[in-house]
Amino acid sequence: MSLDLSEYSVRTDLALEAHDMASAGGTLIPGLHKTNYDEDGIRVSLIDITTPEASQTIGKLPGHYITIDVPELRKKDTELQDRVATLFAKEFERFLQKLNIGPNASVLIVGLGNWNVTPDALGPMVVENVMVTRHFFELMPGQVSPGYRPVSAVAPGVLGTTGIETGEIAQGIVDRSKPDLVIAIDALASRSLERVNTTIQIADTGIHPGSGIGNKRKGLTIDTLGVPCIAIGVPTVVYASTIVNNAFDMMHNHFQKQTSNTGHILGLLDAMQEGERLQLVKEVLNPLGHDLLVTPKEIDQFIEDIANIIANGLNAALHEAVDTNNVSAYTH
Amino acid sequence: MSLDLSEYSVRTDLALEAHDMASAGGTLIPGLHKTNYDEDGIRVSLIDITTPEASQTIGKLPGHYITIDVPELRKKDTELQDRVATLFAKEFERFLQKLNIGPNASVLIVGLGNWNVTPDALGPMVVENVMVTRHFFELMPGQVSPGYRPVSAVAPGVLGTTGIETGEIAQGIVDRSKPDLVIAIDALASRSLERVNTTIQIADTGIHPGSGIGNKRKGLTIDTLGVPCIAIGVPTVVYASTIVNNAFDMMHNHFQKQTSNTGHILGLLDAMQEGERLQLVKEVLNPLGHDLLVTPKEIDQFIEDIANIIANGLNAALHEAVDTNNVSAYTH
Amino acid sequence: MSLDLSEYSVRTDLALEAHDMASAGGTLIPGLHKTNYDEDGIRVSLIDITTPEASQTIGKLPGHYITIDVPELRKKDTELQDRVATLFAKEFERFLQKLNIGPNASVLIVGLGNWNVTPDALGPMVVENVMVTRHFFELMPGQVSPGYRPVSAVAPGVLGTTGIETGEIAQGIVDRSKPDLVIAIDALASRSLERVNTTIQIADTGIHPGSGIGNKRKGLTIDTLGVPCIAIGVPTVVYASTIVNNAFDMMHNHFQKQTSNTGHILGLLDAMQEGERLQLVKEVLNPLGHDLLVTPKEIDQFIEDIANIIANGLNAALHEAVDTNNVSAYTH
Amino acid sequence: MSLDLSEYSVRTDLALEAHDMASAGGTLIPGLHKTNYDEDGIRVSLIDITTPEASQTIGKLPGHYITIDVPELRKKDTELQDRVATLFAKEFERFLQKLNIGPNASVLIVGLGNWNVTPDALGPMVVENVMVTRHFFELMPGQVSPGYRPVSAVAPGVLGTTGIETGEIAQGIVDRSKPDLVIAIDALASRSLERVNTTIQIADTGIHPGSGIGNKRKGLTIDTLGVPCIAIGVPTVVYASTIVNNAFDMMHNHFQKQTSNTGHILGLLDAMQEGERLQLVKEVLNPLGHDLLVTPKEIDQFIEDIANIIANGLNAALHEAVDTNNVSAYTH
Repeated sequence: MSLDLSEYSVRTDLALEAHDMASAGGTLIPGLHKTNYDEDGIRVSLIDITTPEASQTIGKLPGHYITIDVPELRKKDTELQDRVATLFAKEFERFLQKLNIGPNASVLIVGLGNWNVTPDALGPMVVENVMVTRHFFELMPGQVSPGYRPVSAVAPGVLGTTGIETGEIAQGIVDRSKPDLVIAIDALASRSLERVNTTIQIADTGIHPGSGIGNKRKGLTIDTLGVPCIAIGVPTVVYASTIVNNAFDMMHNHFQKQTSNTGHILGLLDAMQEGERLQLVKEVLNPLGHDLLVTPKEIDQFIEDIANIIANGLNAALHEAVDTNNVSAYTH
Repeated sequence: MSLDLSEYSVRTDLALEAHDMASAGGTLIPGLHKTNYDEDGIRVSLIDITTPEASQTIGKLPGHYITIDVPELRKKDTELQDRVATLFAKEFERFLQKLNIGPNASVLIVGLGNWNVTPDALGPMVVENVMVTRHFFELMPGQVSPGYRPVSAVAPGVLGTTGIETGEIAQGIVDRSKPDLVIAIDALASRSLERVNTTIQIADTGIHPGSGIGNKRKGLTIDTLGVPCIAIGVPTVVYASTIVNNAFDMMHNHFQKQTSNTGHILGLLDAMQEGERLQLVKEVLNPLGHDLLVTPKEIDQFIEDIANIIANGLNAALHEAVDTNNVSAYTH
Repeated sequence: MSLDLSEYSVRTDLALEAHDMASAGGTLIPGLHKTNYDEDGIRVSLIDITTPEASQTIGKLPGHYITIDVPELRKKDTELQDRVATLFAKEFERFLQKLNIGPNASVLIVGLGNWNVTPDALGPMVVENVMVTRHFFELMPGQVSPGYRPVSAVAPGVLGTTGIETGEIAQGIVDRSKPDLVIAIDALASRSLERVNTTIQIADTGIHPGSGIGNKRKGLTIDTLGVPCIAIGVPTVVYASTIVNNAFDMMHNHFQKQTSNTGHILGLLDAMQEGERLQLVKEVLNPLGHDLLVTPKEIDQFIEDIANIIANGLNAALHEAVDTNNVSAYTH
Repeated sequence: MSLDLSEYSVRTDLALEAHDMASAGGTLIPGLHKTNYDEDGIRVSLIDITTPEASQTIGKLPGHYITIDVPELRKKDTELQDRVATLFAKEFERFLQKLNIGPNASVLIVGLGNWNVTPDALGPMVVENVMVTRHFFELMPGQVSPGYRPVSAVAPGVLGTTGIETGEIAQGIVDRSKPDLVIAIDALASRSLERVNTTIQIADTGIHPGSGIGNKRKGLTIDTLGVPCIAIGVPTVVYASTIVNNAFDMMHNHFQKQTSNTGHILGLLDAMQEGERLQLVKEVLNPLGHDLLVTPKEIDQFIEDIANIIANGLNAALHEAVDTNNVSAYTH
């Protein structure tokens, strides 16, 4: 959730959305590379931001981003869920290789968010479902089967329930348990109802202030933690104002197919820049208490499904002994 | 949730909204009576529909409706919650008197909805928190303290999880346990994000097909159950299309203060009838999978708070021995 | 749980235990037949009680009983759990055939017990995990894939939370939904800590007053329901006094290997009849508040595991389209 | 839970039990002081261990111990629960004064244990219900109402689910958040079924290896944390062997009233030392898988009630602004 000063800008937690907005006119941006491929209902986009200029242009930190889009993911199709987990695992493995994280590097998984707020419970639910192995390496070194690495996992809570910044807690745990890599899982706010619970983003940039849908002001980054931090995020909520603003876009596109003068139908709103229009919508809705963050009615099921996909995918990606083609056999 | 053929109409589960839409132009409708009073942040509206004509005009069954509106109810103010519960109890008591339900009449509370879908869990949560006394009357007749009546409570589940229409289950239980009155609690879809988790409606019309946000096709009415049925409903979800449509209204009102020509800004949409415009919005959003039912991010807390208010209010209203001024002392 | 007058007798909810106690001396009891077979860590016992005399001797109603004993079932071995579910399904199918329940007969599964009391939550948890299909047959007759039968499922709650006898609720639902067979799932009290969460009993006798660990006084039998009722029970709790009494037995057996005079060690208690000794233990413990029903510390996990086994087994046994060799693929 | 080498000794987590065993014969132990008072169904015992000799004799660390015994606490009496919380608050306040913890000292509450194992969930449940205020002091220094102190709270999980020793996590969080005092809440194993969920112990000795019912090997003490640590513990489980052993005691006492020769009835067991007999019982039960840790059937309710008492008591004791006579008004 954007809590920063530019909260009326069309800010997004997803690099893919930022990229698409910036490149909307077809402009080529140096230092910004995107490739994507489709696989039977799943679209994978790989975005690399390699220069400060590109970073500034699209408002995302330099780094590597993977976005997995599965429009049908809300349909309770367990076969599709297994395919997404398998694909997630394969892309995550490649990501680890690119970052030179070896097969024995120890990993701490940090599930951000609040157990008691369903759309914010993604992180804690992933933590509950991943295989934890670090204690076996600590207590019985040399006796752990080959194909596993030390993995630990914590759900530190949120500022409102602990009284301590999540970043502080994570840092304290990293100091003591000394992992080689942190993986932080977080629920995000989306720019589009369509992406809510259908998109997974992986980024090697860590978690930065103002991201995520809770009060987690202090970042989880290589600078604060001293070890690399991969962030996994899933949009689970959207502002009512964003829904309204998107509807204008959709109506604009809808009418454009029928008439050249969409302004006739949509008035001045039609001509406005997206950011300007969103600001207007927010200004109208906000004072009336109408600009809530909302989530789909079926959020309980959606969160559980995606948490399982990510947990299964991580188990397969982190442990060579876990079969990437049968990811769901290893969790409950 | 409207599942009927007229799903594009501006249908609402709330008699108050239906009344306000029908009377928007200031028209007086014979057979339709409304009074209301305010009490420190709470607005109570009493609507009576006494003629078939009035019923048809506003699209609601003849009967008595009480609406309790508490715009600040989502703010976790426990003192306000207690006041709402107390006021609910007093109005509910008057309602029982009007219906000639005596102090010893036995009551079955039916909590409609699905435990596992948070915005649909209102009914089951109320059932979990009400005082149940019927078994004491059955097992130890004559030994129950004065000031109590026989109250039973069930949460029958939803069609998708039981395979049986909820109305059938309720009827079977009524046949066997023979209450004098049924009170059915249900989550509703709202026409306005503003009303979600801030409004409670009480009606002596029972529950009718197409109401509520689940699959509960068979009604709970005096006709099907053989005893009167009071329905208590709370809007907990809203369609994305409704949010968009409301935003148009708000923008129209906003600009009207500044200019006489709001059509200049909002185009053709400005001149459309509300129903017509909603249909247009739905037609654009639906095929893109954007017309989901959504609920506020904080739904877990909101549902728990309102379920407690209703349970506390019912306990005080149904048992004379429970002090109406200290409603929350009797539940956990 | 025994709530009847003979509560100091060595009563048990398991026919197998009753059989073994009655046959302890090697006596042959006419009208009582027992066979059993072992399969890799699972023991299946089939007991038929065919005469009133046999019924009276062992204190169990005439009927067929299957007991599945899996001493290692508390060890979280998912491969073993799958094998138990598969074996359960095969035995349950044979049981249905013996009772002449055809492949299209409709079934109502009734999960007895209380969601909020973990050791009593077995029934509701099974209900949550079984495949429910009846509504498809009702709403789209002729369009359901072959290999399925109409199955419905309810968790009616317990007397203390509903105010209505569970048997009354079940009867009302049977009256309305008209199944051909009822399957009732219930948690039991055991005579032995060893059997807690390791034993599953299937019986065609229905549920009788005084069974199960809650207040469910009215039975669920062919007499009350009008259709046959198969009971599935799992011991989940044991009385502290039973633990103590069993310990005496174990100590007796232990010392018997070392000495001919176990009375020397165990005193007068050694010579007592089991029932007499249990009564003594209860008389000592009860007034001190020490004769609680207890359950293993890990009950949350145990209940979940067994509920999954039974749900998986029922899905495979009730629907031909569900593969008996891969039972867990159909539930979540 | 005793995991150390002396596991067959009559070890107890409660100083009161250790004191009573050591002083059974009426021996006076120098350096060991005990006083107690009763208040309408509540017994408060204050034990001070001031010398290494006394510490060694009763097997407890030097320090101050308060034990609150409420035999009727399992009876769902909310009025009694409120009185216990109020008394807890008053004793805890005195304890803080004795330790020179001032009214502005910052406090970190650490809820040990596992959410998913009901008898081990006490710590996390207390954490969920205490008032957390530290972030207000951090974010809006100078604006917090008088009468509050900075309180933070975490539930770090258990070794089996995090892969990291709980002590390490706690230390890391203390390093970063720098509280003046740590309060650690933990579920304990009891020597007596009677004490399960009826006794609360407060001690200024911190948590030591081998205490509590989970894998929390590293201690939480002033030595490891650098700040004082007050431990609050509640027995929630008991070994089956302990139940058996206690039953022997009770039977011994029972028969002693009737006869001078209890050995006649109880055999050699009667003459054994308690520790010796417990060892024997364990040796017989253990190989048969009968020496489980067990908990009362109603554990869900008991844990919730005691967690509320402790949370209410801590809120009143830690914040002067919270009224000690109306403790339950501040939590939900």
